[in-house]
Amino acid sequence: MEMIEGGVTAAKGFQAAAAEAGIKYQGRTDMALIYSEKPCKAAGTFTTNVVKAAPVKWDQAIIEENIKPQAVIVNSGIANACTGEEGMKVCKETAKAAARRLGIDKHSVLIGSTGVIGMQIPMDRVKEGILKLAESKSADFESGTAAARAIMTTDTEKKEAAVTFKIGETAVTIGAMAKGSGMIHPNMCTMLAFLTTDAVLSGKALKRALSEDVEDTYNMISVDGDTSTNDTVLLLANGRAGNKKIRYGTPEYETFKEALHFVNETLAKKLAGDGEGATALFEAKVVGARTKEQAKILAKSIVCSNLTKAAIAGHDANWGRILCAMGYSGAEFDPEKVDLFFESAAGKLKIIENGTALDYSEEKATEILSRPEVTVIADVREGSEEAAAWGCDLTHGYIDINADYRS
Amino acid sequence: MEMIEGGVTAAKGFQAAAAEAGIKYQGRTDMALIYSEKPCKAAGTFTTNVVKAAPVKWDQAIIEENIKPQAVIVNSGIANACTGEEGMKVCKETAKAAARRLGIDKHSVLIGSTGVIGMQIPMDRVKEGILKLAESKSADFESGTAAARAIMTTDTEKKEAAVTFKIGETAVTIGAMAKGSGMIHPNMCTMLAFLTTDAVLSGKALKRALSEDVEDTYNMISVDGDTSTNDTVLLLANGRAGNKKIRYGTPEYETFKEALHFVNETLAKKLAGDGEGATALFEAKVVGARTKEQAKILAKSIVCSNLTKAAIAGHDANWGRILCAMGYSGAEFDPEKVDLFFESAAGKLKIIENGTALDYSEEKATEILSRPEVTVIADVREGSEEAAAWGCDLTHGYIDINADYRS
Repeated sequence: MEMIEGGVTAAKGFQAAAAEAGIKYQGRTDMALIYSEKPCKAAGTFTTNVVKAAPVKWDQAIIEENIKPQAVIVNSGIANACTGEEGMKVCKETAKAAARRLGIDKHSVLIGSTGVIGMQIPMDRVKEGILKLAESKSADFESGTAAARAIMTTDTEKKEAAVTFKIGETAVTIGAMAKGSGMIHPNMCTMLAFLTTDAVLSGKALKRALSEDVEDTYNMISVDGDTSTNDTVLLLANGRAGNKKIRYGTPEYETFKEALHFVNETLAKKLAGDGEGATALFEAKVVGARTKEQAKILAKSIVCSNLTKAAIAGHDANWGRILCAMGYSGAEFDPEKVDLFFESAAGKLKIIENGTALDYSEEKATEILSRPEVTVIADVREGSEEAAAWGCDLTHGYIDINADYRS
Repeated sequence: MEMIEGGVTAAKGFQAAAAEAGIKYQGRTDMALIYSEKPCKAAGTFTTNVVKAAPVKWDQAIIEENIKPQAVIVNSGIANACTGEEGMKVCKETAKAAARRLGIDKHSVLIGSTGVIGMQIPMDRVKEGILKLAESKSADFESGTAAARAIMTTDTEKKEAAVTFKIGETAVTIGAMAKGSGMIHPNMCTMLAFLTTDAVLSGKALKRALSEDVEDTYNMISVDGDTSTNDTVLLLANGRAGNKKIRYGTPEYETFKEALHFVNETLAKKLAGDGEGATALFEAKVVGARTKEQAKILAKSIVCSNLTKAAIAGHDANWGRILCAMGYSGAEFDPEKVDLFFESAAGKLKIIENGTALDYSEEKATEILSRPEVTVIADVREGSEEAAAWGCDLTHGYIDINADYRS
């Protein structure tokens, strides 16, 4: 498996485009298109929030009915959530307009939206945007990157990943783009990630690979504990690589899943590290657990703790908050057996042993915690299972962005 | 029932004191004493965090064994959590020293601690503090207030409440003090609240009244989602009022519980409104619910949402975040039936109806949200149950306090 440059256009037969449609913001691209030269097998996971945005409902119907999508239209100005019947009508008209401009079936258009909740989307601007997208779509590297930029809201960086690997003698590619960066506490999936692959694989293999891997990647990140109304992960496979068909449970399936996991974990960490106002990616690893479930609950509780995240912002080795967050996680463990370490590019330091503090150097701890990627490792010393979760520090930037996001 | 001035010394037969012991901070009082002239019946509720501070374990043992306490010693510098065997030894020595100075049984001393996790408490300073407390204790109004000040950490105001009411012809009083103000997301009880009453009542009535009421008061507040290692609510009854004994389930029990609820709700709201960095008390009322449980889950999810709390800080009527928080709460409801209102001393405004936005005045909404106490009312229109939860806005102040709390 090799990591390559690019995103959603890295796999064969996919094109992308970005456009300035002025949905809500001016002077920036705010619509994106992913287009496949052939209809795709598709898998998707969606928010578990009871309040689901209209495009989430739209996409869920397409995925559940095994319709073969050929395009995804995304806007990053308005979430189209809490918009009632008019919101669903916007989805329908968007799909119809895109289908006409792209010359494809109107049932084969998936839709993604992110932005302000509650506002209605101006349909005339969407239509103009679709026209621009259809005219400028291309399979080149730059078009994929332009699309990745167009779906950003408060993200500070575009997020792409791509890998290539072999199935038998055939090269297969998975590419992807995603956006964060607030209201990130995915439950089943995260705020808008789009994956494309040219692999040939069975519908079952595609769906299982995505749903299983989402549990260990997007579902293990949190920026602010707020599970969005719009969380969507879509994986499109157009079969253009021409490899021997990948079936569920085979060695080829494992190869595909490993590559998929790499892409998903890369994007999940980018989402966490670029959380609103973040200055650091904050990783929590729990090792020595009895079960993977226990490790996951503990790790996620650490990265979700506001107090711990504020301490990370201050480069403060306030390990008591970490043990406290483990304590209220709901998972059982013995606090008096825990060993805790801080680690980053600046080194690794053991802070507590058997639940009480060692005579460690605060200076060294602060040095370790001052890097842009920091890890806390908690060894609960009860078994051999482990899990990781990713979050970010809680800073003034988060308040700046969210105390007045709408204006 | 009448609200009166004062706190833990309001009820007959209780004394209090404060002292500068220099446990961690200098130039301020950091130890407090509550002393009863007679041994008390006692009830307590404690943190559900797996990581429990030593004084929590100490007090739990006393309450569970129905030992009759006569004093409470509190320090506000060091939490005595994650301190292993030495932490328990500190509790034992504290109780012993206090018992000797006060001339009471060493098993009758309850202990409260709040502050930094993981540090050991300097026992020599505690002993000096106890000496000062024993020498200066008094039943007057000012001593209760001095104790309420001495238990503050990042609180900006001392928190006291007291009421007097009649049982038959006899006047009975409940007084209390509490402290917040970070790591506040109580589960069974909150960070240090101490209640005293001169009521005569059965042990069952005392324990049930406290445990039932805590569910509707302290357990319905949140500052930052972090359930502390030290949460403790203690209720001491010395029987000095001489009223006819209050038994569980009688009309007198209801009278007592109503008064207790008033004191608890008053303190709970003070804790929420004085959350770290807070500029506003943020109340969420859910009405029209099918069950009280549903209403409580929805209300608590709203006041716990970082995004909603940041919007309140910005006086921004970002109602989409509120519906979103209700959506991921875990409680079922129909988002397309919800009506939502904002209310404060500046007025009341209907924002959404049947889940979609009305054409309301943003200016008026901002005016309502600019007051120091703001309420959101969500009517889910499914029944007649309701519940309230209390939190605060999320501000730069929270980051300032917590990015570098230890230094």
